Amino acid sequence: MRFFSDNAAPVCPPVLAALGEVNVLDTAYDGDRWSQRLDGRFSELFGTEVRALWVATGTAANSLALAALCPPHGGVVCHSEAHINVDECGAPEFYTHGAKLLAGNGAGAKLTPDAIRAVIDPIRRDVHQVQPHAISITQATEYGLVYSPAEVAAIGALAKERGLGLHMDGARFANAVAHLGCAPADMTWKAGVDALSFGFVKNGGMNAEALIFFKPELADATLYRRKRAGLLSSKGRYSAAQLLAMLEGDLWLANARAANAGAKLLAEAAGERLVHPVEANEVFLRVTAEEAAGLRALGFDFYDWGVGEARLVVSWNQAEEAIRPLVDAIRAL
Amino acid sequence: MRFFSDNAAPVCPPVLAALGEVNVLDTAYDGDRWSQRLDGRFSELFGTEVRALWVATGTAANSLALAALCPPHGGVVCHSEAHINVDECGAPEFYTHGAKLLAGNGAGAKLTPDAIRAVIDPIRRDVHQVQPHAISITQATEYGLVYSPAEVAAIGALAKERGLGLHMDGARFANAVAHLGCAPADMTWKAGVDALSFGFVKNGGMNAEALIFFKPELADATLYRRKRAGLLSSKGRYSAAQLLAMLEGDLWLANARAANAGAKLLAEAAGERLVHPVEANEVFLRVTAEEAAGLRALGFDFYDWGVGEARLVVSWNQAEEAIRPLVDAIRAL
Amino acid sequence: MRFFSDNAAPVCPPVLAALGEVNVLDTAYDGDRWSQRLDGRFSELFGTEVRALWVATGTAANSLALAALCPPHGGVVCHSEAHINVDECGAPEFYTHGAKLLAGNGAGAKLTPDAIRAVIDPIRRDVHQVQPHAISITQATEYGLVYSPAEVAAIGALAKERGLGLHMDGARFANAVAHLGCAPADMTWKAGVDALSFGFVKNGGMNAEALIFFKPELADATLYRRKRAGLLSSKGRYSAAQLLAMLEGDLWLANARAANAGAKLLAEAAGERLVHPVEANEVFLRVTAEEAAGLRALGFDFYDWGVGEARLVVSWNQAEEAIRPLVDAIRAL
Amino acid sequence: MRFFSDNAAPVCPPVLAALGEVNVLDTAYDGDRWSQRLDGRFSELFGTEVRALWVATGTAANSLALAALCPPHGGVVCHSEAHINVDECGAPEFYTHGAKLLAGNGAGAKLTPDAIRAVIDPIRRDVHQVQPHAISITQATEYGLVYSPAEVAAIGALAKERGLGLHMDGARFANAVAHLGCAPADMTWKAGVDALSFGFVKNGGMNAEALIFFKPELADATLYRRKRAGLLSSKGRYSAAQLLAMLEGDLWLANARAANAGAKLLAEAAGERLVHPVEANEVFLRVTAEEAAGLRALGFDFYDWGVGEARLVVSWNQAEEAIRPLVDAIRAL
Repeated sequence: MRFFSDNAAPVCPPVLAALGEVNVLDTAYDGDRWSQRLDGRFSELFGTEVRALWVATGTAANSLALAALCPPHGGVVCHSEAHINVDECGAPEFYTHGAKLLAGNGAGAKLTPDAIRAVIDPIRRDVHQVQPHAISITQATEYGLVYSPAEVAAIGALAKERGLGLHMDGARFANAVAHLGCAPADMTWKAGVDALSFGFVKNGGMNAEALIFFKPELADATLYRRKRAGLLSSKGRYSAAQLLAMLEGDLWLANARAANAGAKLLAEAAGERLVHPVEANEVFLRVTAEEAAGLRALGFDFYDWGVGEARLVVSWNQAEEAIRPLVDAIRAL
Repeated sequence: MRFFSDNAAPVCPPVLAALGEVNVLDTAYDGDRWSQRLDGRFSELFGTEVRALWVATGTAANSLALAALCPPHGGVVCHSEAHINVDECGAPEFYTHGAKLLAGNGAGAKLTPDAIRAVIDPIRRDVHQVQPHAISITQATEYGLVYSPAEVAAIGALAKERGLGLHMDGARFANAVAHLGCAPADMTWKAGVDALSFGFVKNGGMNAEALIFFKPELADATLYRRKRAGLLSSKGRYSAAQLLAMLEGDLWLANARAANAGAKLLAEAAGERLVHPVEANEVFLRVTAEEAAGLRALGFDFYDWGVGEARLVVSWNQAEEAIRPLVDAIRAL
Repeated sequence: MRFFSDNAAPVCPPVLAALGEVNVLDTAYDGDRWSQRLDGRFSELFGTEVRALWVATGTAANSLALAALCPPHGGVVCHSEAHINVDECGAPEFYTHGAKLLAGNGAGAKLTPDAIRAVIDPIRRDVHQVQPHAISITQATEYGLVYSPAEVAAIGALAKERGLGLHMDGARFANAVAHLGCAPADMTWKAGVDALSFGFVKNGGMNAEALIFFKPELADATLYRRKRAGLLSSKGRYSAAQLLAMLEGDLWLANARAANAGAKLLAEAAGERLVHPVEANEVFLRVTAEEAAGLRALGFDFYDWGVGEARLVVSWNQAEEAIRPLVDAIRAL
Repeated sequence: MRFFSDNAAPVCPPVLAALGEVNVLDTAYDGDRWSQRLDGRFSELFGTEVRALWVATGTAANSLALAALCPPHGGVVCHSEAHINVDECGAPEFYTHGAKLLAGNGAGAKLTPDAIRAVIDPIRRDVHQVQPHAISITQATEYGLVYSPAEVAAIGALAKERGLGLHMDGARFANAVAHLGCAPADMTWKAGVDALSFGFVKNGGMNAEALIFFKPELADATLYRRKRAGLLSSKGRYSAAQLLAMLEGDLWLANARAANAGAKLLAEAAGERLVHPVEANEVFLRVTAEEAAGLRALGFDFYDWGVGEARLVVSWNQAEEAIRPLVDAIRAL
């Protein structure tokens, strides 16, 4: 039983079915009727006018967002453990043509206004130093922590005060919304977010993520960048259909709630072993090498996280009965 | 009835079915069992050891290939009407970090050794001028012409003599193979091609193309570039499955033959109106504005191509009965 | 006697002397009192508020100007024989992060509104094609032709109409001004030019050119780009001093007039052999291989220009008596 | 009296004189007889075959070196306080097309093999993470510390073991050699250094630094990159002459010794106030805000360094009598 990544999970049946439904002749690229519905559908979801673009991966969504917010000679403040900083092989640098990621710190990969100020305040305002142009935060964070709307808004206020753009890497945005029970608007544009990488693939999609611009004018040049990056699928309707299927009947929220619930079960079993509070679908727990080996011997797969920690990720399709054996195994450690 | 692009056609049923077949939990990215089979499967097809990577679009495949063959300060010889030069929004420049496309000429977007020499021979061998590092040809060309193996080999010989890499943009590679009836090897590595963008999407695929390296060592850095470009899908098995389904039972060839056959029917009807010989699935014919309007009034869709020409593209799924009305309409002009 | 390049000429004595005059302790980079005078001094010269930056080379000035006018995904219209297109090793592509040079044509490397429209009008306004963002013209052109103020203004009007920036590569700007006898303003900002590479090195300087922005706000990001490109000399006063010395007493104009006068002498001698009218300090003449060899045997150095042509360039320091022998030799051909 | 930067110092008289000596007509760019002597002259100095290129600034030298050692998708290990990381406005990222600086730590901006391993050992060998390709160290460091030949060699051995290139930012290389009394070879190629930015401007030059390749083949592509970056001066002889003048009679060493000696005087006066041992021409001392203000009131200029520290830099031309007043003032604090 695999708990090492929500990327390993299969695709959700309605998403797969949607591919069949759009399997008819239509206009190429993003001119088809499904791609054309995205702006409207996501504007509805967010309660404001947005531009919504499908892209193939979260890395592409993040990088396009940063390229829209930061010039080549600028910098983007992010957490030192942010996915964009350590797990995207320099994609932000590629898309921004060499902008610099300015790394800050904070427990659980979470930034705060103070942590951001600690990065940007020492930067001299002269041409010798890379000037900050944007901030990027991950919601939920790489350690499964969730920013409250107020926490995002505090960062948003700082961004506004300093004239910085604000990007949210929402690879697990759905899990964060499910955890908070808030409206998607509350922790995005209402809190100062300019661009959101809205993840669907980890949550049951196949190969389409949504890049959302709350400042619609940012989308214009991004359309060129998307093409220039070789990301403009010629049969875009199969990407749009995935996103629409995930939004239909709030499937995205249902899937995220299921994954979060599974993680909660593991968290309860883990008790004192938890490294971070469990607020999304990731569980980090302290285990000795022997304990980790023991769990693996029972058939559980997961990542070691540094020394003495294990990362367990619950996917949208892992129902309580699928998780119960691991719950028991953790309890029995 | 649409004849304006093979990108508008639906996905071939076996490709769609394959997505369902791989819809199980497996390793993320390209670690799954299907992605892992690509090198072997394509090596078999080409009769030599190759490295095969799935990528989302032909533009991405082309650009990654060029980045593997040309440094940022170098140049790539291509036809002035090559897709990489006029229809990819500068993607080759993006991926190569600013390498220069050095445009040559030739009827029907076809290059010859002479045309290439006319581009590179005047370049002084000094640091003031961008030096050529690679050649890129399109097979079949943007006007539906097919290079014979001997024609490719002549270009390959020139490339070798001058120390240049050779890339083939095979967005319609299948149509070219179907036309020639040769082995895929004959017009690729045996003729000096180093990297091939092997197109599947126009030929019935959904969103996976294959990037083939006949010099396997070129793939190593490309794996990093693919990730860095945000092109490494986290659920790669849905891309690999498309390619494997297309190779199964030579579906790719069957689809291409069907499309070519349809184009031949149109070509016969067009007679003297043909601008170029029809060797793949594209037909360019001379029509007055009135004639074009007349065809459209009958329900036929297609692109105007400059003034006085129309481009008709036949897709894998347009069988004789689907084409017959257009054949009759052209005859009746 | 060398006539192959004005780059080969020595530095003008007042420029050399100026280096000694600033050889005192002062603030580093461009904070010194001489660098700080540039904006004012060039604003005076142009009769409008400009920002003036020293840079080490004309290639750097051109590339920084283009980076200020064109985003990475855009294009710059220039002549196919423009220095930026064929003699800068891809520097514009480097500085713009891969923008595309869109080449037009015209006799003597001169562009016209019609020639520019022939490049940009066929470009579809969709994301598949690189959109033009700027135009670059060379004054005097690579063949020594000079745009009249009216000719520049016609291009400037087109640029404005289409929302394009306008750059002037003025490697031999001084020679053009000397030829026209107009005010520098007449053929720059009054004619719609946004940025000018104002050349001094060919005209008697050592290693400082001026980059002039007629839209002052374009300078802000350029200051970062200049540093980021490693072009911000730590002892900038030695660059500023060169420019100030050249402006002092209109030395730049005197030098250019001298060079132009020398070229006129050669032109008169050349008569029917002239390939282009001689309007600056370059002379292209038709010679057979034997004639060229003959001139070389007499001790004259110059470049062959393609087949059957020779390029002669007169430098600021080649007075009439230095040129007379070549005049006689040409007459004697 | 200014002690804030060796960039503020004037140019050394023999360097200025050399400009006059080469002020004759010669070949353009780096084809002149002085530029052509650089390889030989520096090969002599280093006791091995090297390639030596003039460039305008240390930032340009560093960035070209890194571009020669690291591909766009790679990373360069450097100290978090390295000049390339914090004071070059992203120039390394520009020249390498977005390679990532991987920051390590160590007192006085000095790296050790252990500090480097702490950066690179946690990097997973997969495509998701930027892989290290090179190491860059600064000699003397940004805090005036000098690596011994053995210390460099230890880093060189690690570089070799891991297949990484090794770059030395020698903005104050001369001061380090003067301090160590070793041969230049001992702490460069004999210790595993592949490329050296050999600084002359801070040490009495005007606007020419030397970029030295101990692996001569690295120079080939660099010649194109130098041109492409707009760094190839058209009158290169004025750059070459500066370097040759500095090497003549070991002027570079004499200047560095003078500056080091001045710093030693300050260091002795500073005693317990010293933040770092003084091994080159920089002195960091602990001062209260009042003490700093007091020194300034006496006419001494310097940088505050964070809170409670002052940075004093002694230039090549500040002889003992110029420094004595500051020595006395520090003693009197």
